[in-house]
Amino acid sequence: MSEIKIGLFGLGVVGTGIVKILENALNANASIKKICVRDINKPREVAIPADMLTQKAEEILDDPEINLVVEVIDDAEAAFEIVSGALKRGKHVVSGSKSMIAKHLPELINLQRENNVAFLYDASSCGSIPVIRNLEEYYDNDLLLEVKGILNGSSNYILSRVFDHNESYKDALQTAIRLGFAESDPSFDIDGYDSLFKLVIITVHALGVYVNPDDVFVYGISHISEFDINYAREKRVKIKLVAQVVKISDTEFTMFVMPEFVNKNRYIYSVDDEYNGVVIRGECYDRQFMFGKGAGSLPTASSILSDVMARSHGYRYEYKKMGYKGKPEYTTEPLLKVYVRYVDTPVTELLNFDSIEQRFISNEVNYVIGQIRLKDLKKGRDILAAPDVFLVNIPVFFEDLDN
Amino acid sequence: MSEIKIGLFGLGVVGTGIVKILENALNANASIKKICVRDINKPREVAIPADMLTQKAEEILDDPEINLVVEVIDDAEAAFEIVSGALKRGKHVVSGSKSMIAKHLPELINLQRENNVAFLYDASSCGSIPVIRNLEEYYDNDLLLEVKGILNGSSNYILSRVFDHNESYKDALQTAIRLGFAESDPSFDIDGYDSLFKLVIITVHALGVYVNPDDVFVYGISHISEFDINYAREKRVKIKLVAQVVKISDTEFTMFVMPEFVNKNRYIYSVDDEYNGVVIRGECYDRQFMFGKGAGSLPTASSILSDVMARSHGYRYEYKKMGYKGKPEYTTEPLLKVYVRYVDTPVTELLNFDSIEQRFISNEVNYVIGQIRLKDLKKGRDILAAPDVFLVNIPVFFEDLDN
Repeated sequence: MSEIKIGLFGLGVVGTGIVKILENALNANASIKKICVRDINKPREVAIPADMLTQKAEEILDDPEINLVVEVIDDAEAAFEIVSGALKRGKHVVSGSKSMIAKHLPELINLQRENNVAFLYDASSCGSIPVIRNLEEYYDNDLLLEVKGILNGSSNYILSRVFDHNESYKDALQTAIRLGFAESDPSFDIDGYDSLFKLVIITVHALGVYVNPDDVFVYGISHISEFDINYAREKRVKIKLVAQVVKISDTEFTMFVMPEFVNKNRYIYSVDDEYNGVVIRGECYDRQFMFGKGAGSLPTASSILSDVMARSHGYRYEYKKMGYKGKPEYTTEPLLKVYVRYVDTPVTELLNFDSIEQRFISNEVNYVIGQIRLKDLKKGRDILAAPDVFLVNIPVFFEDLDN
Repeated sequence: MSEIKIGLFGLGVVGTGIVKILENALNANASIKKICVRDINKPREVAIPADMLTQKAEEILDDPEINLVVEVIDDAEAAFEIVSGALKRGKHVVSGSKSMIAKHLPELINLQRENNVAFLYDASSCGSIPVIRNLEEYYDNDLLLEVKGILNGSSNYILSRVFDHNESYKDALQTAIRLGFAESDPSFDIDGYDSLFKLVIITVHALGVYVNPDDVFVYGISHISEFDINYAREKRVKIKLVAQVVKISDTEFTMFVMPEFVNKNRYIYSVDDEYNGVVIRGECYDRQFMFGKGAGSLPTASSILSDVMARSHGYRYEYKKMGYKGKPEYTTEPLLKVYVRYVDTPVTELLNFDSIEQRFISNEVNYVIGQIRLKDLKKGRDILAAPDVFLVNIPVFFEDLDN
């Protein structure tokens, strides 16, 4: 077990948490040597010796004593420069930057192999819940069929305020921003991109296949209206923002991020507030449910600590499933059953529905329930982006698959 | 990645599941060479070539081609002979025999070290839920404070029938036996020993400390009466059989298995039927909840498959926490708050209560609520075993620890 000398990039919410946790981790055998920040003169919550701070990345990347780079900065492109630069210099890396990882994973996997170094990022998906590690190791077999969950705490907090506390969507969003559960520009969370990036990473470790985030259908919750909320309440379901990757046959899988009507007999129905919950379904073991704090300074920092200690034992992701025989292929052919609410946009004309089962028309608002292929939802993405339109998945087909 | 040649001991419910799963595990790179059973002529659910079966352990243990022994037999002493014999011969072993492992773990750890072989047993605790592996790897740090859960599916099924379906305890027990959720002699499950053995194994991987099962207080559900059930219903709580290991300070921890009044805001409140649920609590990440099928042929076999595939990548438990600085020590000093119902046994005279808060006396049945040290519950174990007595933990002290 070798001693770990950390070069830390970023001293924001998560970086500060890491400093605090490492101070109390008696058995970590790891210490921070240098911290790279944007402004060394900024006042800090934790006391850091002045000579530990730097604004120059090279002071970490070119220090031969530093054997682990921990990267927790906000800027995805800068994060990629740091992470790829460290890997190229033969340094192991731990990171929590989900958008950067989701966009650059194939390249980062190559860099790990070429330079014989490890890159760990369990903190990037669901914070303190050990999803990546379990998919990579414990569920390393042919039984896995589906990973489905609530991967974004901010949007879930907002929907919980709406469905459990009868707040309006607008009020809930304001509360979330005020409490720090959502950014002042919350679009990354509520438009589903945070969930999407996590889903892309999860899919690599679940099925051994990388799918570019640009090729995945994503639809968020920002268009939700009182009408949709009342509709769900009448049906005694909640609307949740759900990310899922599902094997639909031995040879194919599909994946998407979409609001979904969630029935109360589903595990994710009870995942409320800022929590995350992930259901892992497989042949033989059926459904396993993992639940916990998905974000926040200390939960995320605790996940980073898990990766740091794993490095002290030489752990790395092997990406074993990428070499599996009979790996399934990504498809957007599956038929979904969806609810589409609209006011003026003629969605039934513009979207290529396979069939329509219900049509509600009134003076103020309309909706349609019908079957449509995922590829046609993708094609109709601009139509669904109209401000008077809101889309919700009705998960009847995949439920049927279970029986 | 080396090919795995398995020698399987046991072809009962779990063994049959393993045969079925391996047939369909395209990427397992593992096959069964020989199966040792008690009676080779017994009719089997799965078709096995006659030359694959043997009644002689040596045909597996002394076969140099077999590099992994999988042991899933019912008899704990025979299981220990097989497992220790295999380890001594330099063979890796996967096992699910919780009582054998709980009783012999220190010796089995030594055998692993002496013979430089691995012994994996994630299936022994909570079947398909990856508790051991996560405690050993992901929660490999100083943050862990508590592992608490419902570890026995049979007793939980019975209590669920009582609390969710208003069945009597006797009827529920009969239903459980009829459906195969409990053995025809169900005492191993309902008296708490199954939970105890799992807890002993979990504690080794949670805190790095082995505690002999004989030194742990265990109390089951077989004395529960309609009075207790009604009492719980009136208080709007459920009674569940809960196993827990809890750090009570930086230097000490305690552990026990006991029925507990579970409030509906607790995660384990919703763990019903034959399911298992485990709450892992730590500094920084707070509570993580893992939920799934804890027993049964295929869920347990899927967990065995996880261990088999982990072996093909050279995985072993390192028992890292056993070498931790500042490991906590086991204590039975903590004060607990308990409910003790009795008819004739003068429990307040015979048990060394620290204080008594409530006393209910009637012509038919009595109860007392008071504080008592865990060591005094242990001393009073015989008194609590009287048929007219039932004990339930009221988890108020440990709840307070959280705040």
